[in-house]
Amino acid sequence: MPFIHEDFLLSNSAARTLYHEYAQDEPILDYHCHLPPQDVASNRRFANLFEIWLEGDHYKWRAMRADGVDERFITGDASPHEKFLVWARTVPATLRNPLYHWTHLELKRYFGIDELLDTQNAERVWAAANEKLAGEDLRAWGILDRFNVKAVCTTDDPAEDLGYHSQIAASALKTRVFPTFRPDKALNVHQPDAFNAWIGRLAKASNIDVTGFASFLDALKQRHDFFHSMGCRLSDHGLNAPFSQPCTDERASEIFERARAFIGASPEEQAQFASYLMLFFGRLDAEKGWTKQLHLMARRNNNSRRLAELGPDTGYDSIGDWPQMDAIASYMDTLDSENALPKMILYNLNPAWNYSFATMVGNFQDGAIAGKIQFGSGWWFLDQKEAMEWQMNALSNCGLLSRFVGMLTDSRSFMSYPRHEYFRRVLCNLLGEDVEKGLLPNDLKLVGAMARNVCYENARQYFGLGV
Amino acid sequence: MPFIHEDFLLSNSAARTLYHEYAQDEPILDYHCHLPPQDVASNRRFANLFEIWLEGDHYKWRAMRADGVDERFITGDASPHEKFLVWARTVPATLRNPLYHWTHLELKRYFGIDELLDTQNAERVWAAANEKLAGEDLRAWGILDRFNVKAVCTTDDPAEDLGYHSQIAASALKTRVFPTFRPDKALNVHQPDAFNAWIGRLAKASNIDVTGFASFLDALKQRHDFFHSMGCRLSDHGLNAPFSQPCTDERASEIFERARAFIGASPEEQAQFASYLMLFFGRLDAEKGWTKQLHLMARRNNNSRRLAELGPDTGYDSIGDWPQMDAIASYMDTLDSENALPKMILYNLNPAWNYSFATMVGNFQDGAIAGKIQFGSGWWFLDQKEAMEWQMNALSNCGLLSRFVGMLTDSRSFMSYPRHEYFRRVLCNLLGEDVEKGLLPNDLKLVGAMARNVCYENARQYFGLGV
Amino acid sequence: MPFIHEDFLLSNSAARTLYHEYAQDEPILDYHCHLPPQDVASNRRFANLFEIWLEGDHYKWRAMRADGVDERFITGDASPHEKFLVWARTVPATLRNPLYHWTHLELKRYFGIDELLDTQNAERVWAAANEKLAGEDLRAWGILDRFNVKAVCTTDDPAEDLGYHSQIAASALKTRVFPTFRPDKALNVHQPDAFNAWIGRLAKASNIDVTGFASFLDALKQRHDFFHSMGCRLSDHGLNAPFSQPCTDERASEIFERARAFIGASPEEQAQFASYLMLFFGRLDAEKGWTKQLHLMARRNNNSRRLAELGPDTGYDSIGDWPQMDAIASYMDTLDSENALPKMILYNLNPAWNYSFATMVGNFQDGAIAGKIQFGSGWWFLDQKEAMEWQMNALSNCGLLSRFVGMLTDSRSFMSYPRHEYFRRVLCNLLGEDVEKGLLPNDLKLVGAMARNVCYENARQYFGLGV
Repeated sequence: MPFIHEDFLLSNSAARTLYHEYAQDEPILDYHCHLPPQDVASNRRFANLFEIWLEGDHYKWRAMRADGVDERFITGDASPHEKFLVWARTVPATLRNPLYHWTHLELKRYFGIDELLDTQNAERVWAAANEKLAGEDLRAWGILDRFNVKAVCTTDDPAEDLGYHSQIAASALKTRVFPTFRPDKALNVHQPDAFNAWIGRLAKASNIDVTGFASFLDALKQRHDFFHSMGCRLSDHGLNAPFSQPCTDERASEIFERARAFIGASPEEQAQFASYLMLFFGRLDAEKGWTKQLHLMARRNNNSRRLAELGPDTGYDSIGDWPQMDAIASYMDTLDSENALPKMILYNLNPAWNYSFATMVGNFQDGAIAGKIQFGSGWWFLDQKEAMEWQMNALSNCGLLSRFVGMLTDSRSFMSYPRHEYFRRVLCNLLGEDVEKGLLPNDLKLVGAMARNVCYENARQYFGLGV
Repeated sequence: MPFIHEDFLLSNSAARTLYHEYAQDEPILDYHCHLPPQDVASNRRFANLFEIWLEGDHYKWRAMRADGVDERFITGDASPHEKFLVWARTVPATLRNPLYHWTHLELKRYFGIDELLDTQNAERVWAAANEKLAGEDLRAWGILDRFNVKAVCTTDDPAEDLGYHSQIAASALKTRVFPTFRPDKALNVHQPDAFNAWIGRLAKASNIDVTGFASFLDALKQRHDFFHSMGCRLSDHGLNAPFSQPCTDERASEIFERARAFIGASPEEQAQFASYLMLFFGRLDAEKGWTKQLHLMARRNNNSRRLAELGPDTGYDSIGDWPQMDAIASYMDTLDSENALPKMILYNLNPAWNYSFATMVGNFQDGAIAGKIQFGSGWWFLDQKEAMEWQMNALSNCGLLSRFVGMLTDSRSFMSYPRHEYFRRVLCNLLGEDVEKGLLPNDLKLVGAMARNVCYENARQYFGLGV
Repeated sequence: MPFIHEDFLLSNSAARTLYHEYAQDEPILDYHCHLPPQDVASNRRFANLFEIWLEGDHYKWRAMRADGVDERFITGDASPHEKFLVWARTVPATLRNPLYHWTHLELKRYFGIDELLDTQNAERVWAAANEKLAGEDLRAWGILDRFNVKAVCTTDDPAEDLGYHSQIAASALKTRVFPTFRPDKALNVHQPDAFNAWIGRLAKASNIDVTGFASFLDALKQRHDFFHSMGCRLSDHGLNAPFSQPCTDERASEIFERARAFIGASPEEQAQFASYLMLFFGRLDAEKGWTKQLHLMARRNNNSRRLAELGPDTGYDSIGDWPQMDAIASYMDTLDSENALPKMILYNLNPAWNYSFATMVGNFQDGAIAGKIQFGSGWWFLDQKEAMEWQMNALSNCGLLSRFVGMLTDSRSFMSYPRHEYFRRVLCNLLGEDVEKGLLPNDLKLVGAMARNVCYENARQYFGLGV
């Protein structure tokens, strides 16, 4: 029996029924990812297995570094072929790491390869995969079709013109591709050079001359409106904890003007300014019925030497340990007090905080929309079996699993769609175990309906993307 | 087979033997709850299933809000019958939430109903339950008798006259009902209006004219003595973390006098004053051999709009993430240094802190009383299978499960006694699994004796309530 | 079947094969312990079971205190025989505590005793064990030989002359015994009396006249060189969080000179001075290719009354809850920026922080050495099945279990070698469960090789001790 077989991860009979009869065939709504829109617009073809699989994957980079691999074979000047061979050598060292499962699930679903990758078969796998990549089936559109992806939400800067999204909308692609509004750069008054350059791009995209704080807000609002017109229904923010300090219009304007004069904000001022904008964005999202996503608790760029050499997002990030319920509660409460709390998803990166998150979301369920405030799916380091189960158990025990909008890839890669399959197997296995232990009624119609909803239908209804 | 069957939660043979032969028939000592003494005194009869089951249950309210139910059907002006029907509609959405288990366990044990509640059978359940509620068996006394409740400790303000407790003591009720001393209002020098009004009630109850700080302490001491005379052997405090700042008599007196002059204390002053009183109360408890309970880590009233509309304890609370071992250690150490550390139970609401709590209690075991300092049972959001198991595992690994005083309902409702059954099933299942895996000796007499002690006997010996 | 049988802890068939065929017969490399070097040098003979088993074991002391045992029978003036009898009475109360497993594993492996210790058989066990202790087999050397211990790293103050290590090296003992450099006392500028006395011993050992800060550093460096010449390849530090504050040479020198003049450093100054030295020691370790160990998150000496009476390390320690990733990241990043980051093992005492630790180590893997930065094995309160599994799961999910250097005893006692067996059984059980669930390939050669490496070979290669 191959490692990835029909019942992979499904340890009991109820789980197998739930997966095969309720979960497996549901479409995919990938409501948060980092796919490059241009790759979709151009229906990208991948030259080889390195390009589609290793090129930007900092999970694999971290594993290779921990395995003692020289950086030359990771982000350095070794050839794609060499880098792949080195990766293949590391694969057996990843036993018990999620990479081991993902690797073989991806080889199977994209290339029909059932072997366990190692140095013995690396050349063979390289050749076989590259041959398949030359076909239409494994170009960007073929992949989206193969995995039954109904909609994809990319992650986009407000200063983007969304030209690729226009192209995609006008194309024959059946998958709907929507932008997501991620205005992280609007908060960076402490980095005035980058901030002012970005405002230049924002002004151009919005066609609004940013002469002061008021027109800055106008330009942001114009982009929010424009994104909405392009089908955008979600925003996203990458933060340690939500900013939630008091800040008047005057104060925000002052800090803004100083940054425009290339005087960087102090940490305190940056926090005030960011707090002001986070409320501003919250109100915009609430007005339009969007869903706001907060990605919390990442501790980024821990290795300053590598940050200088390789830049951000190269595998030097980890999990923070800051208390933050005060800030989260204060942010949500302020918006709620003005009746301007949008639908919101809180993604937590530190599993020790799961119960705090799972109970916090319950404080702002207002009954208007089922599951209005969501405790987001296991994210980044938590996007694996153990931590997915923790997130679903915390959500189940402190809230309603039945209203969960479920899985997303959060990925830069077209090779990540089997993560949805992985999630569904974990979900069905968890539910199946409960059924077998008598913790859930032995009524697979009842339990299966919940599983099915978590796979797709809840997200479809919740986000209002029109799919 | 019905969902709630004889072996519910008991996944293995050893567990079934342990539960049925050792745990099931033990009496109940519910040493911490929030039952209204007047309901016991009057042997309350419940008009319908809403009154006994939904009226004050913020767990159910939170679930309904998360399910998208309008507040009118939760705390609003809808009729009891309508509210029940809406709750019944939400029940299937609570699959995997502890409410799903509790709901069906309660329907079974009180009304003999085996169906899974939903909109189909809601009217039928409503009618059947209401009919049974009309009988003597499901009045307050009938319930206490049915569940073999030997003693109940309510939670009471020092300014109460305990008149209902006197009535109960003089009645024919077999269950002993004791007050618990909960002086939270004595700390509130930052809310001078409420504080002074409360002192008025305290003066009346104690018959001591509170003319200054010394007579304030006298009045508190009088109430402590009086509670003791009424059989009280426990105190209780709801805190984030224990207050533990240095504060002299003079300083406490100053802060007190200012509050009496309606000048509210600053947060710093309030913490000093509260620290002073927490030591004062600790010494009183130690002198009389009481057990002090600290309920820690709740983050209350997160939703200020709903707090203004609905008041506290309406389902807008969650789990805090403050580090607090410094404060806990300092508080216990100060009392211990004066040889005035009472028996104490620390209840922790954040499961991430379980191991810190479980090891902290070990620092102050003085050998005088087995299990003198207790790591309390899973509380509030943690009062469910997953978190009960975590608490018992942390306690087992870092201390002595064998000395654990076990379960309490912490409930406002007469429908909560099956929580003891639930706990016992979880306990026996955990022990049975260990036996089956060879982690405990396959000697059910040995293991069963421990299970039995945790159910009732440890609490009976520990609290000294005279039952 | 006895409680400790051939397949103890091995719940499935794959686990049994992995343990018996791959793990069981591997030698032991106990790279961190607190064995007294003089006991090895003198090939100590133990007069009775109390001496070898209870004399310094604060785990047992805590259990007895929690069980209500008077301190006289724990650390007081009761006889060894009496103390043993009292311990035997407590043993059945430790069901589910790791002591219950360790106790019976140790009785079996050292004395061949299969009974469950209690008051019934205590006298018999005492007599039988004492008789065996009189033989050669259970003297220090016999024990090291019986457990196939290839090397032991003790924990030593830089001011030690390592005379016992010289004697051991010159003896017939086959086990290699190396010192470990633990300079905790060098940081204590806030305790000038002890600090200056210690500098006196340091000066004598190093034969360097400590006339100022420069010669202080010279003396430390001399000891580091000398320890290296004695085979030392590890350092160790017991800290709450790593110190990581900016501190110039001048500032460190000032603080040092004031301490020399018996003016104790403020907490802020002590942190600065300690930060300076921690970088100094980091650079020394990196130069020589040593491995630096950081033991983090212990909250020591919580009970000040007992600290005054009994001194430190007597069972009044617990688990801290301080956020500390900022300090850890800053410390490692500073060393890494100078290309002076040694191999490092981070031991974490708070399981809630496991994922933060497991991801933090990944930020400083530089590819030079496989597994250069290690997330250390479950430590102190976490040295038991549940927490070992958590540590290995966190490491597996966020890093490479295959590169793990595995178990150590961290023990003061010659009775602790079965902890390696315990760890190996837990490891094989975990891997076996994964195999049985299809989470690992059903290829026991592949999985067994990983298990074997974690038992011994990884440590052998990583530490470079020449065994």
